[in-house]
Amino acid sequence: MFDNLYGCRESLLDGIKRASDVMIAGKVCVVAGYGDVGKGCVQALRGSGGRVLVTEIDPINALQAAMKGYEVTTMEEASKEAQIFVITTSYTGIIMGEHFLNMKDDSIVCNIGHFDCEINVSWLQQNAVEKVNIKPQVDRYQLPNGSHIILLTKGQLVNLGCAMGHSSFVMSNSFTNQVLAQIKLWTNRDKYQIDVHVLPKKLDEEVAALHLDKFDVKLTKLSPHQTDTAVIQK
Amino acid sequence: MFDNLYGCRESLLDGIKRASDVMIAGKVCVVAGYGDVGKGCVQALRGSGGRVLVTEIDPINALQAAMKGYEVTTMEEASKEAQIFVITTSYTGIIMGEHFLNMKDDSIVCNIGHFDCEINVSWLQQNAVEKVNIKPQVDRYQLPNGSHIILLTKGQLVNLGCAMGHSSFVMSNSFTNQVLAQIKLWTNRDKYQIDVHVLPKKLDEEVAALHLDKFDVKLTKLSPHQTDTAVIQK
Amino acid sequence: MFDNLYGCRESLLDGIKRASDVMIAGKVCVVAGYGDVGKGCVQALRGSGGRVLVTEIDPINALQAAMKGYEVTTMEEASKEAQIFVITTSYTGIIMGEHFLNMKDDSIVCNIGHFDCEINVSWLQQNAVEKVNIKPQVDRYQLPNGSHIILLTKGQLVNLGCAMGHSSFVMSNSFTNQVLAQIKLWTNRDKYQIDVHVLPKKLDEEVAALHLDKFDVKLTKLSPHQTDTAVIQK
Amino acid sequence: MFDNLYGCRESLLDGIKRASDVMIAGKVCVVAGYGDVGKGCVQALRGSGGRVLVTEIDPINALQAAMKGYEVTTMEEASKEAQIFVITTSYTGIIMGEHFLNMKDDSIVCNIGHFDCEINVSWLQQNAVEKVNIKPQVDRYQLPNGSHIILLTKGQLVNLGCAMGHSSFVMSNSFTNQVLAQIKLWTNRDKYQIDVHVLPKKLDEEVAALHLDKFDVKLTKLSPHQTDTAVIQK
Repeated sequence: MFDNLYGCRESLLDGIKRASDVMIAGKVCVVAGYGDVGKGCVQALRGSGGRVLVTEIDPINALQAAMKGYEVTTMEEASKEAQIFVITTSYTGIIMGEHFLNMKDDSIVCNIGHFDCEINVSWLQQNAVEKVNIKPQVDRYQLPNGSHIILLTKGQLVNLGCAMGHSSFVMSNSFTNQVLAQIKLWTNRDKYQIDVHVLPKKLDEEVAALHLDKFDVKLTKLSPHQTDTAVIQK
Repeated sequence: MFDNLYGCRESLLDGIKRASDVMIAGKVCVVAGYGDVGKGCVQALRGSGGRVLVTEIDPINALQAAMKGYEVTTMEEASKEAQIFVITTSYTGIIMGEHFLNMKDDSIVCNIGHFDCEINVSWLQQNAVEKVNIKPQVDRYQLPNGSHIILLTKGQLVNLGCAMGHSSFVMSNSFTNQVLAQIKLWTNRDKYQIDVHVLPKKLDEEVAALHLDKFDVKLTKLSPHQTDTAVIQK
Repeated sequence: MFDNLYGCRESLLDGIKRASDVMIAGKVCVVAGYGDVGKGCVQALRGSGGRVLVTEIDPINALQAAMKGYEVTTMEEASKEAQIFVITTSYTGIIMGEHFLNMKDDSIVCNIGHFDCEINVSWLQQNAVEKVNIKPQVDRYQLPNGSHIILLTKGQLVNLGCAMGHSSFVMSNSFTNQVLAQIKLWTNRDKYQIDVHVLPKKLDEEVAALHLDKFDVKLTKLSPHQTDTAVIQK
Repeated sequence: MFDNLYGCRESLLDGIKRASDVMIAGKVCVVAGYGDVGKGCVQALRGSGGRVLVTEIDPINALQAAMKGYEVTTMEEASKEAQIFVITTSYTGIIMGEHFLNMKDDSIVCNIGHFDCEINVSWLQQNAVEKVNIKPQVDRYQLPNGSHIILLTKGQLVNLGCAMGHSSFVMSNSFTNQVLAQIKLWTNRDKYQIDVHVLPKKLDEEVAALHLDKFDVKLTKLSPHQTDTAVIQK
């Protein structure tokens, strides 16, 4: 939850800005996928004044996006309108040749999903009439129809390729989680068979609790009476 | 998820406005609890220009509130600063006598949690020097220290007592869910023993899918190739 | 500035909710005009999860709307997409017959501009095949094409017709302004000829200063040294 | 309006991120000044999840900040709470020795105002027990009380010193304005004496109109009838 949502909310723009210095305000942006990474990206782009379109395959995520006031549409439609493309899924073929050909001149295309398969970069390489390397991690392809595509960090993760990745604070949450999990597994190694284990929510709570001081968060403690009279047991 | 978060995001303000016509902008508001109901209330109050403080017992919820830029503090502290109090928990004793005595004159106190135990109304009734019924569901108590408290709908649910409850659209989601669940249970009644059953996420997806048309949401369908090459299996 | 922007930001939704109990989240809303009233309405609708389209005649206002991430389009286009229509201009004929015929079934149409000329209500009255009065201030017209229009308070001001108007706090700003202006004019009546006078910004500052305490705002005072060394004289 | 508000809204974070990679979410940030630059900075910091405090000398600006839900307080108070300090005024002595001594360890201090006088850098240089240059434009001072201050680009403009300044789009607005003004002055040079002239709003409208296409903004044109019947003449 933490590095995907909160990390990407800040590192997406950081990557795009360092790579392109483009203004987000007023631009039509499309974010493919409205999971945790997508939610963070969408917030960041709207927060900077972008108009954000969302594509989704999951009806629950799609409804969540709609209930926040985002237009949910397909890449076929969005590729004709948007100027900034951000891919957050882990599926192949999210941006394909036909989408590139729909795009406006000098559209910026980047990926913050899991792999480098989401954007069909090989189509670009095979079909572009020219490729100019603007600076490290920024390539500008000219398409047969005359328009240009600015591809960031070859379609790999833009927050790693074009910025410094997530802030240390958010990674501290993620790493603390992993360390506590390892300690838990080791100290209870007799109880855990070799298998995939879902670790208790208790660990997440510990991680969060350890990071609250940094924000001067004052947590409320229930009295024994309040706990005893709780009607809904969680 | 739908009626708690999205329903309360709209019905909280509706209830407060119909009851009091108070301006939210510029006011310090405290929301006790940052679960789904609390998240909806906090969004609504900030969206109208209120400055929102949050109280929480759960470190994960507290961290989420902080990461959205909300001050997380205790009711002891918040009761001295805020002018609008919204309780979203299901615990007793969230607002007690000592908190009432801390409050500014004519603070508005309401509940959108589960019951009517969250606010200690009996303390008010026993300790107030005067109680004036302003209009139905709106009582103004004068405290021994001279200041006044405006209590909405006797500490019961403000969106039901002072407004019309949730919009029909959001309840359509909730009721569709229940109806689909009943159909599922009935048509598979041989498989389900008498017990508490968690119904499959598939049902939530069906509910969401049935409501997307109303918003002109265009859902994306993966091709068989995209499904086959998916690296992360969900 | 105060009653238009901050007043409407709260009283628009109050009026729509009391009249219709409609859910804003997920709905496509169009706001005609992006002046102070329009800016307040747009913030309120987005704050509740609506997707907001803007129509404008002024290029500066239009650019401001775009830089906040709103789609700026014409009523011809918007009337096919939106379900909630809010008019904030003072021009005639913003919503005309052709727009009504474009609208989705049970679209809600209201006015928060200056007069009752913005929406062509007489077209509705002459062309509707049926008119049902749902409740006071809420009429549902059936168009010849079969779809329905829900018109609030006969096209007059929705925050006055369907709610209690602005909150007392925001009107206190407006009225204080008028009173201070009258005092100023009276005490300096020798200096002011009978004419239209623009009153000094100083008065607005006084009004604002008088209302800051209510919000616990702590204003900073410059030291004489800071004032003396100020490079930009305002 | 354009480079101050919209430019800084994006270039502030760009500068802070490139310099420090700090996470904004959850941090308490103080913005000194709520003019156009301040408004842009405040939006950007809240948009990333920061909790923003504002300091102001002007009651109208202070009220505007309060009506958006920001805490308005003094630097004496804010310096004890905040971790990120952004100065947008053009006055001397906004951050002085006593404020540095109040700050939490490793607070980040930067300026996006007009000059380099806002932050008392010479106090830092004279009183720090150690100064470490982390990287170009980033200095870490150790104070006599043991805590550290991270000063960006020596107290000069952080968006110029630590990032690439404003995006080309926003500067295109500013420069178009200047060019149109020069053309206007030159072609009407007989009418303008040597003096300071306020140029007509018409020019701003032209600038805005020239940039709308880039955002696919569709402007509405009033019919002659609508113009003729306009009740409020602007």
